[in-house]
Parts: sequence; C-alpha cells; structure tokens
Amino acid sequence: MPKLKGFQKLTFTYEALQTWFDTLQVQRCREETIPLTEAFNRVLAQDMVAVEDLPRFDKSAVDGYAVRADDTTGATQAKPLLFRLTEGDELADAAHREAKQIWTGQPIPKGANAIVMLENTKKVDAKVEVWTQAAPHDNISRKGEDLKKGETAVRDGTRLKAYHLALLAALGNSEIKVIEKPKIAVLATGNELAETGKERSDKQIFESNRIMITGMCSELDAEPLDLGVAKDNVDEIAEAIELGLKIADAVITTGGTSVGGLDLVPEAVNKVGKPGIIIHGIAIRPAMPTALAAVDNKPIMVLSGNPVAAVTGFEVFARPLICKLLGMKKTEQRPMVKAKMSRKITTALGRKNFVRVKVTQKNDEYQAEPISSKGSGNLSTMTKANGYVIVPENREGITEGETVTVHLFSEVETGNP
Amino acid sequence: MPKLKGFQKLTFTYEALQTWFDTLQVQRCREETIPLTEAFNRVLAQDMVAVEDLPRFDKSAVDGYAVRADDTTGATQAKPLLFRLTEGDELADAAHREAKQIWTGQPIPKGANAIVMLENTKKVDAKVEVWTQAAPHDNISRKGEDLKKGETAVRDGTRLKAYHLALLAALGNSEIKVIEKPKIAVLATGNELAETGKERSDKQIFESNRIMITGMCSELDAEPLDLGVAKDNVDEIAEAIELGLKIADAVITTGGTSVGGLDLVPEAVNKVGKPGIIIHGIAIRPAMPTALAAVDNKPIMVLSGNPVAAVTGFEVFARPLICKLLGMKKTEQRPMVKAKMSRKITTALGRKNFVRVKVTQKNDEYQAEPISSKGSGNLSTMTKANGYVIVPENREGITEGETVTVHLFSEVETGNP
Repeated sequence: MPKLKGFQKLTFTYEALQTWFDTLQVQRCREETIPLTEAFNRVLAQDMVAVEDLPRFDKSAVDGYAVRADDTTGATQAKPLLFRLTEGDELADAAHREAKQIWTGQPIPKGANAIVMLENTKKVDAKVEVWTQAAPHDNISRKGEDLKKGETAVRDGTRLKAYHLALLAALGNSEIKVIEKPKIAVLATGNELAETGKERSDKQIFESNRIMITGMCSELDAEPLDLGVAKDNVDEIAEAIELGLKIADAVITTGGTSVGGLDLVPEAVNKVGKPGIIIHGIAIRPAMPTALAAVDNKPIMVLSGNPVAAVTGFEVFARPLICKLLGMKKTEQRPMVKAKMSRKITTALGRKNFVRVKVTQKNDEYQAEPISSKGSGNLSTMTKANGYVIVPENREGITEGETVTVHLFSEVETGNP
Repeated sequence: MPKLKGFQKLTFTYEALQTWFDTLQVQRCREETIPLTEAFNRVLAQDMVAVEDLPRFDKSAVDGYAVRADDTTGATQAKPLLFRLTEGDELADAAHREAKQIWTGQPIPKGANAIVMLENTKKVDAKVEVWTQAAPHDNISRKGEDLKKGETAVRDGTRLKAYHLALLAALGNSEIKVIEKPKIAVLATGNELAETGKERSDKQIFESNRIMITGMCSELDAEPLDLGVAKDNVDEIAEAIELGLKIADAVITTGGTSVGGLDLVPEAVNKVGKPGIIIHGIAIRPAMPTALAAVDNKPIMVLSGNPVAAVTGFEVFARPLICKLLGMKKTEQRPMVKAKMSRKITTALGRKNFVRVKVTQKNDEYQAEPISSKGSGNLSTMTKANGYVIVPENREGITEGETVTVHLFSEVETGNP
C-alpha cells in the first residue's frame, strides 16, 4: 500500500553516511595489474617504493665540461685557465687540469666533481678555456637527489596523474597494480520517462538522469553500467536492481523515492533482500527523499528523480562511496575556491542546503552569484552554475558579501585568452 | 655543426604563442557525430538549441492534488475544504471544487492551476480534505521554465559535463556533433634514454617524458600517439617527426633542444619541411630552450628533456594549442585558488617563472609552500607539489605572506574525511 504521509524523521547527512558505511563495511574493489601506459587517472593499489636511487648516478644538469672544481680556482673571463681535453671515463689527478666535454644527462666521469657550462668556456684547438671558477657539485644532478632508494615514490590510494606516471616510469615500472574500476549500475524509474530519441506519449518526457549519473561516475573513473528505465512497478524495479547487484559493485536508482503512491523503489529494494533500506529521508535540500540501502553487503543508492536532487544525492553519498571502493584514503574533493556572495540567500534551518552558484572573477576577487532557486529541479540551473555552496544545518542563509567556499564543478571563466 | 653558444635572444611567452599561432592559422579539428552516451568530456561542435519548451507541458513538481487555486480560498487545517475527486483529464468548472490526485512529473489536468501537496490534504472516502490555500502556479513546473523553445541549451565549444549531457538528453538528442579528439604524436629523443622495463646500459636512464606528455594530453581529452624514443641522430629524429606529422594533428618532442652538441631536434625539424623552427628560446623558467615550429601548417612543439621544463612548456604552449584544435573559445584553465606564500622566493627578472608549490589549508585559509628549487628537474618536486604560481617577467620574486594565484594540478587536501 502506498504510504501517504511525509517523512517521519530526517537523518543528518553525516550520520546517514556513517550508518550506511558501518552497515556495509565497504571494502575496496579488487586489484588488477595493468601496463603503466594505461594507468592515467587510475588509483594505485600499493605503495610504490624507489628500487634504486633516482638519478642512479651523478649526471650533468647542463651541456659543458666536467672538471675538478679545485682546478678552476681563480679562473675568470679576463684570466681564463686552459684545460686539456680527455675522451676517457676518468680525469687525470688534480692539478693536471683535465676536462671532459659532457652533455646534459650524461654520467660524471670519475675524478670530476663540477660542470662548467658551455657558455663559460671556449674551445681552443684540442684544449678548452675555462672562464669561471666552479664549486664542487656545480651543475650536477646528484645520485638520489630526486628520490633515495627505499623512499616511497607514490602512495597506495593515489589517483595517478601525469607526474606520478613519469616518476614510476623513471623508476623502471612498466606495469602497475591498480584498483579495478568500481562498476556502478544505474537505473531510472518512472512511467513518465521515455528513452531519448525514441517514441514518447503526450504525457512522457525524455529520461535524462542516467546519462548524468553515468557522467558523474566517469568523472571519478568508475565504470557505469546501464540498467535502462523501469516502469513504476515493484516487480520490474526489483528485477532490475537484482540484475544490477549481480553485475556491479553498487546500484544507483533515480525516481520513485518520495512518499507518494508511485514511490515504489524503497519497497522494491526491500523485496530484493536484506537489510534493504537502511535510511530514508535526509536532512538535505534538495535530495531530501534520498534513501540508502544495502543487499548482501552491496550498496544501493536510491536518488530522487529531480535531476538537481539526484546530483546532490550523488555528491553527498555516491562520491564518498566510489572513493572508498577505489581504496582512496579520503573522499576526492572538487576544487574549492573562496568567493563573496553577490546577494543574500535564505535557506532551510535544520537542513544541509546545496546552493548552486556561478562564480566569476571581478577585480581579482571571486564573486558567487546564486542561481535562481525558482524551479530547483531545472537542469539549466546546473549548466548555468559552475559550483555549489553548502549552507550548514545551523544557518538560515548567507548574507550579501559573506565569504563562502564554492565547490567547483565547471571552470571559472577569466578575462584571459 | 653543433652551435656552441647560448641563445641569442629569448622571446616572451605571449609573443611566442601569438607568432606561432599566426604562422600556423590553427583550425579546429574535424567534426564527428557520436552517440550522446559517449560524449562525456568531449567538446561540442555546434550550438545546441532547444527544439521545444522544457518542460514541454506544465507538470506537477510534487505529489498531491491538482486544483483550481480559487477553489481553495480560506482552507486551513482547522477549517478544511472538501473536494470531489475526479479521474478525468479535466476539472469541473470553478466553484465545483474538483481535485485530481497527481504525482510528481505528471501533466496538470485542464482547468487546474495549482497543486496542493499530499501533506496538506487528507483523503476521506471518495473525497479529499484540503488544508491550505493555494496560489496560482503553486507546485507547478511550468512549460518552458527550464528552457524556452529556440533558446541555446549548450554552446559550441563547450566541454560536455554530466549536466550538459542531461540537458541535451532531456531535449531529445541521442546523437551529437563533437570535435574529433586532436591526435598528438609524442617523441622522446636522447642516447641516454632506455624504454622503461627494458635493458639499459650503465649510462642510460629510463625514459619518462612520453608517459607524462601523453597523460597531460589525456587530461585534455586529446589522443596521444606514441612515436617511441629516437637516438641523438638528425635523420632518425627527422624520420620520426615526419611519421608523426602524417598520423597526427601535432607533434611534441622532448629533449635535444638546447644549444649543446647533441641538441639536434631543431635541425631535424628544419630538415623535415618549411617553415620549420619559428621560435627557439623562450623567456620562461624552466623551459627556456623550448622551440615552436610548423611544417606544412602542422604544429610541432620541441620541449626540453628536463621533465619539469617539459611540463611547463606543455602548459604554456601545448594546452592552448590543444584547446584551439578542440575549437574551444578560450584555453581551458586549471582550477585557480588564492593562497599566501609561506616564504619568500627569488625568481629571474625578465623571465616568466613557474614556481611549484604545495597548497595546504590552514585556519580556513590557503597557504602555498614553494617546493625547493634545488634540482629543478626532479620529478618528485611535481608529485610533492599540487600547483604552480606564475611570477611575471617584471618581478624578481614573491615576498613572504604575499597573496598569489595558484594553478592547481592536484587536489588540495583538507582536514575533512
């Protein structure tokens, strides 16, 4: 039977997340070994330690001549010192003034302890004039100065960026152990929904939440799996969720999660297995009707059908879950900037309010303009905004000119070309 | 013959970029039509206009009862008004007090102009008590309130994020025209380089620039193509660049671009075709020996072999180029935050200096700690930093406590879980 009442109780977001994670005992996904060349943006599954010093030998940081520093004492452009050139791997003893031509990256010959840059020398037949005095270690990249053998190069749980890959390549790793991409199955529910580009009745709209959720999964480098659209029918929804649990590490649904007559997703989840719905109704705006569930220790997130509420539910619950599945030590944050609110806004006391804003740069300062909250479910408010501000439960709004932290989901446009 | 002098002249970065682009007349890449489901992070190749109002009909924003607002005048919980229920698609004339049960997203029946939320009603047999007075348009998502027919939904040149995809799906687009991913061929040069994980001599190190450059290309959703490693040999380098020009939209090389005896890449580029090297030597630190070139109107970037200099060269020249190839209106910026420098740094006057910093949050304020510039070529300085500060040509450094703009390339860690 449809429940025809509002929520009896709303749970605070932090408490909801904690209870859900405690029930689930979320483990990170399996590991897999992949070529380093395919590891961009993946998450490392082990501490990577330097197996040797980096660089592994003293090498020249410049083009020039390897010398004994002592041999250059007193050299100036006015009074250059003349050095004998050698082709060997070792300089003659001190006071013999031997030099060896050397290019950037080449190992330092034995006996040498400094490099004089090409610009400060002049080749004269088979000899070279040195025009400056060198100190020991001048222009030498020293063995181990980048990383010492045994030092941790990149930590377990790190999202691998270009620089991490380069460091791991320099250390000789051609393969690497990463966390498998968490598979997230995504289901939309609702009689009113038609597949984009297909036939639709007069009362139907094109479904747009799945592509949004899958995009947000891709952003975190999780692997979205499409469960399609289910009608408002408990059995149909339950069947789709059951399939999702079989093929994926977590299931996200949208729609049918309020307390109206067609809000059948919580019932369907409970039909699939235990413990089912753990929390339903969150002290958050938008996204209040979000439900968190688990079946056989696999997480299920029941998000609102309102696209902006679905985004908010994803940010608050799916993002931390996916980061945990990826074995990250902390939830990956969106870039945050401080900005001044361009005008006063009012929010609901006792709720965590997500306010969409458009950040612009003005006189070398960031300003945040709230995007009209009329029609809070409108997708265009997301494409017009580039971030959100979180107003905590103990506040009733933000005053004009107040400095806030904006979580950016799109670029801030600047005046620069 | 090797040139054994330093650079005669250094070009300022902005001037270098301008000259290079002017010579090249960079055109954006070809267009391709792809399924919307594969369009995440791609760049839109046309303005997308709403072909109909969104929503295309007035619909309920809540679960409740559709009514004529006038019929509810005076209703309170103490003095509810009783409404007759109808199943039809139209309410009876005013003063008949007819209501129709409605769920979120359903079209508004004819005659109705407001929705009373379920919470403010009580069903009594075949009738419903209404406990509050409704104003016209209450709880109705109005036709066209998200987007009006003919309005631009997403602009040409936009990088498509989750919300753009959702908006385009809601408007019925199942396919979309995007810019093809620019193909960037990447070549490393240097006798000292061995392929990671392969055999290497005592004097060789593992090559790590290609994977870094390809990672940075992937970050911008360009498609990197691997040209491997070439020895310090003009013919071998020229041959590889020639191949790169055949298969890609641009070529990036690393190493061999200074003025030493083994710096043969500029010579090799000039051998491949006209105009060849356009600019060599930039007033930037690191990355001074960067060269910009073109052959048959295809861009070639000759980056330093020093990994940090290569990153800098990429940021300053490859990033704007790739954004232009993608048809973006402006160069996509990294997220920028303001931070206070934790200590004084000294930089070279007349050069644009890129200073790596580690930004941390301290007392609700960002602080930027410069990463030691000793060993400026060390990769670990990149993995320890999370952003860079650009010190302009007319400055000799930054004072302690000065507020700077940091371009973030990794996340700023916060104390939050």
